Amino acid sequence: MDFVITINSHVHTPLHRQVYEELRQAILSGRLAPGQKLPSTRSLAQSLSISRATVTQGYEQLLSEGYLETTIGSGTFVCRQLPDDLLQTPPIESTSQVTNSPISLSAYGVSLTERSLFRLPEPEAQISFSYGRPAFDKFPLHVWRQLLSRHCRVNTDVLDYTNNSMGDQRLREAIAAYLSRSRAVKCSAEQIIIIDGSQQGLDLITRLLINRGDWIAVEDPGYLGARRAFLANGARLFPVSVDESGLLVTNLTTDITPKIKLIYVTPSHQFPTGALLSLPRRLELLAWAHKSEAIIIEDDYDSEYRYGQRPIPALQGLDHRNSVIYVGTFSKVLFPALRLGYLVLPHTLVDVFTRAKWLADRQSSLLEQHALTDFINEGHLERHIRRMRSLYDQRRQTLVKSLAAHFGDKVTIIGENAGMHLMVKINTTLSDQEIVQGAAHLGVGINAAHSYYLKTSPGSEFVLGYAELNEQKIQDGIDRLAQIILNS
Amino acid sequence: MDFVITINSHVHTPLHRQVYEELRQAILSGRLAPGQKLPSTRSLAQSLSISRATVTQGYEQLLSEGYLETTIGSGTFVCRQLPDDLLQTPPIESTSQVTNSPISLSAYGVSLTERSLFRLPEPEAQISFSYGRPAFDKFPLHVWRQLLSRHCRVNTDVLDYTNNSMGDQRLREAIAAYLSRSRAVKCSAEQIIIIDGSQQGLDLITRLLINRGDWIAVEDPGYLGARRAFLANGARLFPVSVDESGLLVTNLTTDITPKIKLIYVTPSHQFPTGALLSLPRRLELLAWAHKSEAIIIEDDYDSEYRYGQRPIPALQGLDHRNSVIYVGTFSKVLFPALRLGYLVLPHTLVDVFTRAKWLADRQSSLLEQHALTDFINEGHLERHIRRMRSLYDQRRQTLVKSLAAHFGDKVTIIGENAGMHLMVKINTTLSDQEIVQGAAHLGVGINAAHSYYLKTSPGSEFVLGYAELNEQKIQDGIDRLAQIILNS
Repeated sequence: MDFVITINSHVHTPLHRQVYEELRQAILSGRLAPGQKLPSTRSLAQSLSISRATVTQGYEQLLSEGYLETTIGSGTFVCRQLPDDLLQTPPIESTSQVTNSPISLSAYGVSLTERSLFRLPEPEAQISFSYGRPAFDKFPLHVWRQLLSRHCRVNTDVLDYTNNSMGDQRLREAIAAYLSRSRAVKCSAEQIIIIDGSQQGLDLITRLLINRGDWIAVEDPGYLGARRAFLANGARLFPVSVDESGLLVTNLTTDITPKIKLIYVTPSHQFPTGALLSLPRRLELLAWAHKSEAIIIEDDYDSEYRYGQRPIPALQGLDHRNSVIYVGTFSKVLFPALRLGYLVLPHTLVDVFTRAKWLADRQSSLLEQHALTDFINEGHLERHIRRMRSLYDQRRQTLVKSLAAHFGDKVTIIGENAGMHLMVKINTTLSDQEIVQGAAHLGVGINAAHSYYLKTSPGSEFVLGYAELNEQKIQDGIDRLAQIILNS
Repeated sequence: MDFVITINSHVHTPLHRQVYEELRQAILSGRLAPGQKLPSTRSLAQSLSISRATVTQGYEQLLSEGYLETTIGSGTFVCRQLPDDLLQTPPIESTSQVTNSPISLSAYGVSLTERSLFRLPEPEAQISFSYGRPAFDKFPLHVWRQLLSRHCRVNTDVLDYTNNSMGDQRLREAIAAYLSRSRAVKCSAEQIIIIDGSQQGLDLITRLLINRGDWIAVEDPGYLGARRAFLANGARLFPVSVDESGLLVTNLTTDITPKIKLIYVTPSHQFPTGALLSLPRRLELLAWAHKSEAIIIEDDYDSEYRYGQRPIPALQGLDHRNSVIYVGTFSKVLFPALRLGYLVLPHTLVDVFTRAKWLADRQSSLLEQHALTDFINEGHLERHIRRMRSLYDQRRQTLVKSLAAHFGDKVTIIGENAGMHLMVKINTTLSDQEIVQGAAHLGVGINAAHSYYLKTSPGSEFVLGYAELNEQKIQDGIDRLAQIILNS
């Protein structure tokens, strides 16, 4: 055991007295617990570069005062029966600890203290219709384990810093190929930077492109995690409404629009409405971005899962003018605790993003990058997506049927053709809060959509995630929800 | 295979013509490679939600024009013998790709484009005395593999988001206990936030506490990674010289000192001089910080390895006034590609740092956090440190002996009592550049210390890392270095 105490040969207190004082304080403050074994006098003397006799002298004093006890043949221990009055002494020097003047924060720091920016985490519900959580129990964890083990075994390159901060070359190639075939993204590995999930991507984009006071257009309603990153970095938000074909691009083209630097969209499955941004709207948006010299952040959230709908190529692939930054993550497809995502960047931005990634955390976890490369290249990724698509489709149908059976024409379902959640609009006289709290009371967790609005929310809209719930739980949950809403 | 093409039912072009055009462009641009198999007409029709006949019509046109070929019983493929003139066509729409107006960066983004901020990576040398790289081949990778596998096997909690962004509670407890016994750091798990290595810690600290134009005091010479983070965030640097007892705290107390918000120190093994900040200096520094209301960033780099020197408790443990943020990492002790480190924060800063971590990347990799917790709690960490301390001590002695044998009184060795590198001052008429280049020519990589100075460098100082090199390589490397310097 390494145990550090302070010995100062520049002061006049004898060294054995310093040993005594330091150990005594360690015992009183709880750093050394009753019954804990002390280092031998030899090893403590050695690590303090003082004589063994000095340490022994300090120990003996503590033994005689009842702080320590010895057991023949096994060493010296902190006494288990310390007098109560000693232990009730307040920890040494801790009384003045919180009386310091408050530490002043930067403008960024102050932004983060805004109450409205963060909400409390939802309490865990027995049946939680929370969005964004995949079917954990279906993830092929044994494959993941094998892939991690494979690289722990033979590849000591996984231990070192990488040459640059962009991420592993083979992984970037695998992602470029995957995005090309599945999302019609046009890019080479040289445009891809591996990041720790999409949140890091949004943070890097905002830091590199936005000064405090700049405007960012956002979907309204829209994703809170993105808005938090924008607001914390001092951006002003320009809300743009959405309808069943996604962002209302015409709302951007009026004269009252401020100069917009970035626009953030979730075109594959708009959060929270679930709308798929139509092809004409995509082309309009690209034309607007070109004219306005704005950059589009394409968060292609939930693009993996669509049900019976025609796929539409990513904005990035339709763009000819380097005006799109494509953000993707493996959190929802593999599992959230895996912090690996990617940015697809215009060539001109690759260098500065690489440097920003270095400054943010040098590089993403390399072992997991190697495992992910094999997971993609050996077909596990697409196989897993195919299986989950079929599973989530069943769960989605169960949810839609349950809602129809219980609520009939009192419910309007939207955004159900893709992703891992849908949105319902319920015809009810109850307030959103009454419904959410009533549901929680019956062990059902749901999210009201009003907090996702910047402008006035129409109310009575709820987001229901279904990917993680089996059919029994879905039916059960909607059954309980109906009790709250229909029996009111 | 998921293969996306654009079909737009809102335009007048017939659908089969759109299928034809899209596939043709995909072939010409290389998205579909010669010999690649196409999806069946049935599955493509299904995924595009159009009739199978429409797809078949498009395929037939491409077959007749020689873009596709069929093999009976196995499907339709991109033709392997595409006419050369077709393939020499420039990829569709790619010519206008880089003619866009440049994207304007934020002030942060512009800071990152400064040439001086980043240096080119060093070329790999046969014998590299680079600092900060541990003995990779001695890391117990089999233990790490077992711990990862253990959590992949039984613990599906490793897959989900954590409740908060501070990191796993058990890991934070393990780190608090480790720091208390080995570094006399006084903290509870509630003051610890898990981060992706020390670089992320420096970035978060700067963002949260520094506005553009604020002053940060830094050791001169000092660590470049920290300076980069400070400069990129718009801080101004106040250099403070160091001597053999570390930072010259008296230089902070003159009247000409600007108002300093933060001071960054590496007290266990000053980078690059290797000085250990003495106890009197530590107490002076804490008194100065209190008087000036400055925060000390204690980067306790290399604290694990000291040779025959008395350990000195961390500044954090000596502080009574919440004026220290302690930064630590497992990169150098375990391996650099493991992106896990920690901050020990004053209580008042915990909330805002937790939010900043959420915004930066939500949380650090959970699977690796669990493995690390067990690695610490089961004694592997301290065992590994003990072994490496003894190994590095041998390597250090070999280096010191080799230097003495070859250079005699022409070399002064400093900072050799701790860490993984030392610094030499060589009495020579050669320039630093001549020595570094001459060494590189003989396959030896060394770093001149002049780039670590903000004020004038005395020159002829070099940093020699030895942790990764075996004794043979060390002797060999110094032998070659002597050829360059002594034969000039």
